[in-house]
Amino acid sequence: MNDLRTQLFTKLQQKESDMIKIRRHFHENPELSFHETETARYIADFYAGKDCTIQTNIGGGNGILVDIHGGKKGPVLAIRADFDALPIQEDTGLPFSSKTAGVMHACGHDGHTAYMMILADSLIELKDQLAGTIRVIHQPAEEVPPGGAKGMIEAGCLDGVDHVLGIHVMSLMPLGDVLYHSGPVHTGRATFKIVMQGKGGHGSTPQDANDTIVAASQFVTAVQTIVSRRINPFDTATVTIGSFDGKGSANVIKDSVTLEGDVRIMKEETRAIVEKEFKQILDGICRTFGISYELDYANDYPVCVNDAKTTEMVAKALTEAQIPEVKQLVECGPQTPSEDFAYYAKERPSCFFFVGAHKEGTPMYPHHHPKFYIDENCLLIAAKSMGAAVLHYLSEGV
Amino acid sequence: MNDLRTQLFTKLQQKESDMIKIRRHFHENPELSFHETETARYIADFYAGKDCTIQTNIGGGNGILVDIHGGKKGPVLAIRADFDALPIQEDTGLPFSSKTAGVMHACGHDGHTAYMMILADSLIELKDQLAGTIRVIHQPAEEVPPGGAKGMIEAGCLDGVDHVLGIHVMSLMPLGDVLYHSGPVHTGRATFKIVMQGKGGHGSTPQDANDTIVAASQFVTAVQTIVSRRINPFDTATVTIGSFDGKGSANVIKDSVTLEGDVRIMKEETRAIVEKEFKQILDGICRTFGISYELDYANDYPVCVNDAKTTEMVAKALTEAQIPEVKQLVECGPQTPSEDFAYYAKERPSCFFFVGAHKEGTPMYPHHHPKFYIDENCLLIAAKSMGAAVLHYLSEGV
Amino acid sequence: MNDLRTQLFTKLQQKESDMIKIRRHFHENPELSFHETETARYIADFYAGKDCTIQTNIGGGNGILVDIHGGKKGPVLAIRADFDALPIQEDTGLPFSSKTAGVMHACGHDGHTAYMMILADSLIELKDQLAGTIRVIHQPAEEVPPGGAKGMIEAGCLDGVDHVLGIHVMSLMPLGDVLYHSGPVHTGRATFKIVMQGKGGHGSTPQDANDTIVAASQFVTAVQTIVSRRINPFDTATVTIGSFDGKGSANVIKDSVTLEGDVRIMKEETRAIVEKEFKQILDGICRTFGISYELDYANDYPVCVNDAKTTEMVAKALTEAQIPEVKQLVECGPQTPSEDFAYYAKERPSCFFFVGAHKEGTPMYPHHHPKFYIDENCLLIAAKSMGAAVLHYLSEGV
Amino acid sequence: MNDLRTQLFTKLQQKESDMIKIRRHFHENPELSFHETETARYIADFYAGKDCTIQTNIGGGNGILVDIHGGKKGPVLAIRADFDALPIQEDTGLPFSSKTAGVMHACGHDGHTAYMMILADSLIELKDQLAGTIRVIHQPAEEVPPGGAKGMIEAGCLDGVDHVLGIHVMSLMPLGDVLYHSGPVHTGRATFKIVMQGKGGHGSTPQDANDTIVAASQFVTAVQTIVSRRINPFDTATVTIGSFDGKGSANVIKDSVTLEGDVRIMKEETRAIVEKEFKQILDGICRTFGISYELDYANDYPVCVNDAKTTEMVAKALTEAQIPEVKQLVECGPQTPSEDFAYYAKERPSCFFFVGAHKEGTPMYPHHHPKFYIDENCLLIAAKSMGAAVLHYLSEGV
Repeated sequence: MNDLRTQLFTKLQQKESDMIKIRRHFHENPELSFHETETARYIADFYAGKDCTIQTNIGGGNGILVDIHGGKKGPVLAIRADFDALPIQEDTGLPFSSKTAGVMHACGHDGHTAYMMILADSLIELKDQLAGTIRVIHQPAEEVPPGGAKGMIEAGCLDGVDHVLGIHVMSLMPLGDVLYHSGPVHTGRATFKIVMQGKGGHGSTPQDANDTIVAASQFVTAVQTIVSRRINPFDTATVTIGSFDGKGSANVIKDSVTLEGDVRIMKEETRAIVEKEFKQILDGICRTFGISYELDYANDYPVCVNDAKTTEMVAKALTEAQIPEVKQLVECGPQTPSEDFAYYAKERPSCFFFVGAHKEGTPMYPHHHPKFYIDENCLLIAAKSMGAAVLHYLSEGV
Repeated sequence: MNDLRTQLFTKLQQKESDMIKIRRHFHENPELSFHETETARYIADFYAGKDCTIQTNIGGGNGILVDIHGGKKGPVLAIRADFDALPIQEDTGLPFSSKTAGVMHACGHDGHTAYMMILADSLIELKDQLAGTIRVIHQPAEEVPPGGAKGMIEAGCLDGVDHVLGIHVMSLMPLGDVLYHSGPVHTGRATFKIVMQGKGGHGSTPQDANDTIVAASQFVTAVQTIVSRRINPFDTATVTIGSFDGKGSANVIKDSVTLEGDVRIMKEETRAIVEKEFKQILDGICRTFGISYELDYANDYPVCVNDAKTTEMVAKALTEAQIPEVKQLVECGPQTPSEDFAYYAKERPSCFFFVGAHKEGTPMYPHHHPKFYIDENCLLIAAKSMGAAVLHYLSEGV
Repeated sequence: MNDLRTQLFTKLQQKESDMIKIRRHFHENPELSFHETETARYIADFYAGKDCTIQTNIGGGNGILVDIHGGKKGPVLAIRADFDALPIQEDTGLPFSSKTAGVMHACGHDGHTAYMMILADSLIELKDQLAGTIRVIHQPAEEVPPGGAKGMIEAGCLDGVDHVLGIHVMSLMPLGDVLYHSGPVHTGRATFKIVMQGKGGHGSTPQDANDTIVAASQFVTAVQTIVSRRINPFDTATVTIGSFDGKGSANVIKDSVTLEGDVRIMKEETRAIVEKEFKQILDGICRTFGISYELDYANDYPVCVNDAKTTEMVAKALTEAQIPEVKQLVECGPQTPSEDFAYYAKERPSCFFFVGAHKEGTPMYPHHHPKFYIDENCLLIAAKSMGAAVLHYLSEGV
Repeated sequence: MNDLRTQLFTKLQQKESDMIKIRRHFHENPELSFHETETARYIADFYAGKDCTIQTNIGGGNGILVDIHGGKKGPVLAIRADFDALPIQEDTGLPFSSKTAGVMHACGHDGHTAYMMILADSLIELKDQLAGTIRVIHQPAEEVPPGGAKGMIEAGCLDGVDHVLGIHVMSLMPLGDVLYHSGPVHTGRATFKIVMQGKGGHGSTPQDANDTIVAASQFVTAVQTIVSRRINPFDTATVTIGSFDGKGSANVIKDSVTLEGDVRIMKEETRAIVEKEFKQILDGICRTFGISYELDYANDYPVCVNDAKTTEMVAKALTEAQIPEVKQLVECGPQTPSEDFAYYAKERPSCFFFVGAHKEGTPMYPHHHPKFYIDENCLLIAAKSMGAAVLHYLSEGV
């Protein structure tokens, strides 16, 4: 296996500039979730004529599956990269900035897809020496619920697959670090929208109106008790009212208010508690003030749970690979954002891990920021890291 | 009539020291509401042998009715004085302080009864010249709901009565003032007791408990909106949580909390709104937090409404009487406390008015204070004022 | 005087169709507060050539003063009509609906000005018989603080004036009623705007943000206690948060929230209490949550207090006038809206009274509603009522 | 070592009935924290004449140190057992129930001390074969802050000590389980007492009072936001108001309220955040309502952190010992209560672990419950488990 890894790393090194070129192409031409037609066409064109199976238009949209059949029998490993962009106006000043106003690759999915294409290309060249099958999942729509992963799975992308791996490049983690966590690694999420309906009126005659701003404020206050009193202090939950839309006039009692927000949890049991309490509090407060309401409460991404053995395998593969660009391997603990990779991890033993992308001494911007950027050296690290894991898996299993 | 008034005033003047003696007797021997046996016996003994009808044990207890039948035909006027004391430890240092620990005449009812007895005695002496009947209502239990007035009325004390008058001596109003207000003069009241039941538990595991202190605090907060948002700003309402009994241990989540409080209103419509909203808020907040509750909500004293014509008659009688001890007659506006005279006023056109009892330059203590006192000069003023009103009424009507 | 009144009423009757024509002209051509140039020009043109003094461009804008000097000496009476419109899109379907999109006479000021012009015209014709001076105040900008009245007074419109009268036509009061209240008749007002500044962040990491929606909700909740606990239950106050502008994204913690609202009171002492408590609560809650804020708190219209004697004079004048179109004269109690006539009433003994404009059996719409309308028969009633008051005042005084 | 362990286990087995006898003696004669004079005397008497060093009256009170010097050189290991009881009226019905009214061993400290005495006795008998020193810490006052451990340490009980071990028997964990957790195992704690001072008054005149029940309720509500918004969702914190003492009268506005409660955290950084926010919220809310306050906020027990290597050593010792009465060894995760063993663990690498004491099929009662009990079979398990750890430590170190 060591020889094979050396061959792979050499190929990846040679193709690093292609990786960067592809990444910049995607960066200049970002497309919103569920609308990534040109991105998908570009990916499919790349694989055209190569020695692999290609399926397109998967998952009710732009998903692509590329199967690389090894020369020998073995397990089936899926490796996933997402390719959608965000509704953000880029403000990086990069020469290859987004050409599409208000749309930007501000989460690194351009890099995910670029490294993955080059890695797949290299693995295709080495396929005769591989024992097993590699399924590359090029997935759309990670950013927007219900998430592209769901549709991909419903379309059968995990049929016959034994394990799944994925990488996220991280703008707030140092370049040179590869990071992982065994167990729950990303929060599960729910989002909600509430329309509360009272009765408008003149500010001088409150008794003839029914003030929804007062009722909604009490709701915001009461909802704090879910996290403070209903959740095991050793568990994780947040409930955020991100939007309180009650704009009106100074002297008119507001007839209606719209609240939107989200919920994050690290256990599915906690999800159920939050949902039950949330609905109870909303209903109770609305009864308290004689207010009617409509609630749209949607549980979307599950908790993303890394399988212990699969994660151990990844850690071992990375340790053994001694990738020169990797300075350290870090157990980083759980991460608060949500990730639709969670759907794969629910179905198959999986591991989702992280590649640092922040170069020391440069400014730091979080994901989804208009100035978000990644140091492009992270692409080669991602490709080698995932490559090492793939080879280890195919030769030694989990 | 002027001559009759002169006769009456002369008699009252002569008996002023008796009035004071009787008042001091009551002050030394206060009895709690519904337990005024000795007080009632003293009153009944006073009338024994006089030319009047006496009924005792009226109204499920210690009530006394004294009827003075005038020599000529005429209307029937009831005049009322209450005689119960309060569960307060006297701290006046008066030589005739209460001999009963923890019980005190801290509202002036001792004075009411004393002036009324001497006035009645004098009117009996003049009865042949009077046209009509005077019914003296010696009423127990004004201080404690449901109030002695209710029982007196149920026992028929207003049968045949045309109008009712009453006086309260006032420790915060200047001696020499006689004060009145036409229309709603005293608030109506409700009292409530809530027991909220959640689930106890250890402070470190809130998820296994259900914190009633949190729920009750939200209730106290929410209940503020009744007055702030549900009541016509031109109307009057207060809702007070006077007692929040949630004493427990620092590290134990409280399983149960008891709240007590009262409601004041100046219109019966407002009473209904407050009760409806109060119950809705309590039920809503308890549903919000999954808390069970028991509510004991009792509407007691009605709004006390002075009849316009009767009040005008009293004002006219007082103006004409030119009582030398009275410095001025004042329209004083409504008063926030509640008064069970309200029950009489609901049944018959009535007037309840005030006699100032605070001597300039002396300390002021509110009613129900351990240092409450009245300047005893107010007794003669009360007797003459009520006497003038009685004579005016019998000779000229309303 | 009776003969003079008969003459005046006959003139008004004859010019009723002119009144209506003028009112419809204004209705079709509404202008916003402080921008009523054409309306002012129309009024000035009307008086051109008549036997009166005309001053224009008064009060920092479009105000007009018309002085009618009687043939004999006497007091000076100001009578006021306002003429601005509102930023409302008319939806009445009337043939003479507003021609200006988004602007509407939805408060009856068109009617005020129309009746006043015809009344003034008629009084000019009778001027030789009048003892005293009538100053007609055509006032702009009643609807928008600081209010046109303020500027008019600063420009000297009350110099030499003894008393002031004004009328409002009322869409929710029955046609045929003329209504008045002695004492405080309209609430005083304050308006406020608060910008609360916290710190934005991701919904999954609340500890790195500072949630202004949570803080603002607690403020809304806490502010209820001003009315519920800090105001004498016999006094009047409302505090309304009419606008809670916290629109954002479901998963982003809101960094800033803007609240707007108003305050109504019936005593200037209450105004001071509300302002003090409001500022204390805002400051306290912002400290509680480590939030910074900017507050713009503006006391605008004073409580409008009708002078007892002036009001009595108006009532007497109306009683004696026996206007056939008036069915009854009603003591209507105080009204919750605010009115910048209050500024005149602060400076001179004044009376502001009401003319019903709702025809039985037709739909009812409040002032400031897109379907607001008045029954035009109210114009003649307003003209005769104000006319009767003027004549009574000039002949008998207050 | 195996032979030594066999000798020790045999001795413990033989002395099991003594263990139970001693435990029952303590159970019948419980003493409150800082008042355990007789208990301490009983312990000291037990060691009298045995081949060990005894120090008494340690730590400002009843602490006892027993040093067992092994025949060979080696490290110094402290093993700790606590011996205070609780202010609880026993309700178990056991024949050896507490003879002291209102005092009870309701946390198992009687068992801790009993097994420890017999274990020490046995180790003394084997001392010549031991390499190193065993210091037995018989500690008073675990239940009451500041906790006996603090005084013991200040008195030097850890001087020369290398590592510390301790056991708690657990009424809610199954008999036969021995449980441990590496890292933070018990919460740190703070306790607080707040006296809020407003102004009393009559329920009908709130404007003259300043209602502390309203202010305290808003405080309870606001304090929920510490846990819900200020703490990293992956960290642990609780803030409990366990006591809200605002008992008063229905119709009197409460002048003063006393709140008591506690705080639990699992990181010292979290402790600092909670304290800062708590004080900020209290001060802010009191300013909001113009209330004065006194706060007594005391950080007491630290987070109890088990050293990774020491915990691994204990787990290894237990695995190798194959104690027949132990069914399984369980990684049990952190526990919410606080424990003053934390003070030792701050000073030396330590491990505090658990012995299950609930027999299947019998009722379960939590610690500090009047019916709390332990299955006495847990004593032998505790003795053998601690014994195995001691021997392993002395022979192999950490």
